Amino acid sequence: MKLVRYGAIGQEKPGLIDKSGQLRDLSAQLPDLAGEAFAPASLAKLAALDAASLPAVAGQPRIGSPVGGAPKFIAIGLNYADHAAEANMPIPSEPIVFMKASSSLCGPNDDVEKPRGSTKLDWEVELAIVIGSRAKYVSEADALNYVAGYAVCNDVSERAFQIERMGQWTKGKSHDTFGPLGPWLVTRDEIADVHKLGMWLDVNGTRCQTGSTATMIFNVPKIVSYLSELMTLLPGDIITTGTPPGVGMGKKPPQFLSVGDVVTLGIDGLGEQKQTIVAA
Amino acid sequence: MKLVRYGAIGQEKPGLIDKSGQLRDLSAQLPDLAGEAFAPASLAKLAALDAASLPAVAGQPRIGSPVGGAPKFIAIGLNYADHAAEANMPIPSEPIVFMKASSSLCGPNDDVEKPRGSTKLDWEVELAIVIGSRAKYVSEADALNYVAGYAVCNDVSERAFQIERMGQWTKGKSHDTFGPLGPWLVTRDEIADVHKLGMWLDVNGTRCQTGSTATMIFNVPKIVSYLSELMTLLPGDIITTGTPPGVGMGKKPPQFLSVGDVVTLGIDGLGEQKQTIVAA
Repeated sequence: MKLVRYGAIGQEKPGLIDKSGQLRDLSAQLPDLAGEAFAPASLAKLAALDAASLPAVAGQPRIGSPVGGAPKFIAIGLNYADHAAEANMPIPSEPIVFMKASSSLCGPNDDVEKPRGSTKLDWEVELAIVIGSRAKYVSEADALNYVAGYAVCNDVSERAFQIERMGQWTKGKSHDTFGPLGPWLVTRDEIADVHKLGMWLDVNGTRCQTGSTATMIFNVPKIVSYLSELMTLLPGDIITTGTPPGVGMGKKPPQFLSVGDVVTLGIDGLGEQKQTIVAA
Repeated sequence: MKLVRYGAIGQEKPGLIDKSGQLRDLSAQLPDLAGEAFAPASLAKLAALDAASLPAVAGQPRIGSPVGGAPKFIAIGLNYADHAAEANMPIPSEPIVFMKASSSLCGPNDDVEKPRGSTKLDWEVELAIVIGSRAKYVSEADALNYVAGYAVCNDVSERAFQIERMGQWTKGKSHDTFGPLGPWLVTRDEIADVHKLGMWLDVNGTRCQTGSTATMIFNVPKIVSYLSELMTLLPGDIITTGTPPGVGMGKKPPQFLSVGDVVTLGIDGLGEQKQTIVAA
């Protein structure tokens, strides 16, 4: 299934995209796509619906984050060997973990704010994991059973805030709109191999990032298992898993985003995003 | 007002402590102490109640975190000059910011779990701020208007996870029960000067930390204003503001917590906590 939340900011309704690409409303089935809505039993109920019987949504409403009220928005740093090299950082021996403010989540095509005083606004196309079940001390072998699905995430970053302002990275990762997610949450059953997905990102139509989840240092089961030893993962938690090479900070000379720039990005099978940079 | 949440884990009800120390139920007034319950209009309504008319709660129920469903659990590092010295860290030129998983929040007297593999479990008595109103780019002069109140927090930390495992600090700050909060949320109007509160922490009855909020490097208005430039603060967000000297990591030789140890702590006017260390 491709699950979506649509409508004005803060008033999103649950929906799904049927096989013909039609948006259909799920408001009669559940109040929101949040928390326990991502549990296996809930997803099984939705999968059993006859999509053709659901109300078709007319027009082109705004698409929001496919996850409402995420309890945690966790991120893995330097999880692609080539990206670690471009960032002049050693390849980590275990996952680097930081958190983004959950208030930074937004729709996949919402404007991205350039914070006041920002000089190094950067992009990162990433595969995001959405948790479906409470996970504490789960093994790698069992970890995928705790995953509801996947989505595209742009881990928007202000590098000066992240690196040059007395720690920690969360400072440059948490501004409103620094977490475009979606357009869809694609349930796990629809992705044959999450470690073979092509990914790309363009700035103003010029290709900046080209990669594949095949080159992740720590894969999805490892990340979920590892995090579950440090904190309890809850339904609706989001984990964005690191970015391939081609971020602005790694260019020679570095390139950062200005107001008016347009960022487009996508991952095979998970859809595409488009954001315009605006002043905060 | 002293606001509390009481009852079994996950089933807490809202309440308040009246002037005689009696716990009274607020379930008829609001579903939970969470989010918009901390907005100024909501607190004004509660303050206008005749406490004597509210149902008295019999017995000694468990006390939970006074904040339900916190959107963010933010922490300030090295915010007391003496603590920075004992940690062998330079005094920061601007606040150090990290995040704790909101799933680490627990009641003030709940058992604290020692994670599997933990060797350096440590304590930190801290003043926590609870946000009452959405705050984005607010000035220091205006910042206190966005604060609902204050609570005691033990910023429980696993130092090896925090410092020795390939970053970031959040790794050692996020395990379940690493955020005992309460017993009360004391509303801002009841604290004459939040920067003159004595604070203390004992391990097995031996005094380890003695301090005062008077020696904070960055005070409450500065912290709220500073954070509001990096991320939007929401009602129910918790900010724990750093610890005075006397943590286990700073002792010579270092001292860490073992299963069975008992930690007690408190801050003037904000109440006391007591936790027993148990195996995860």
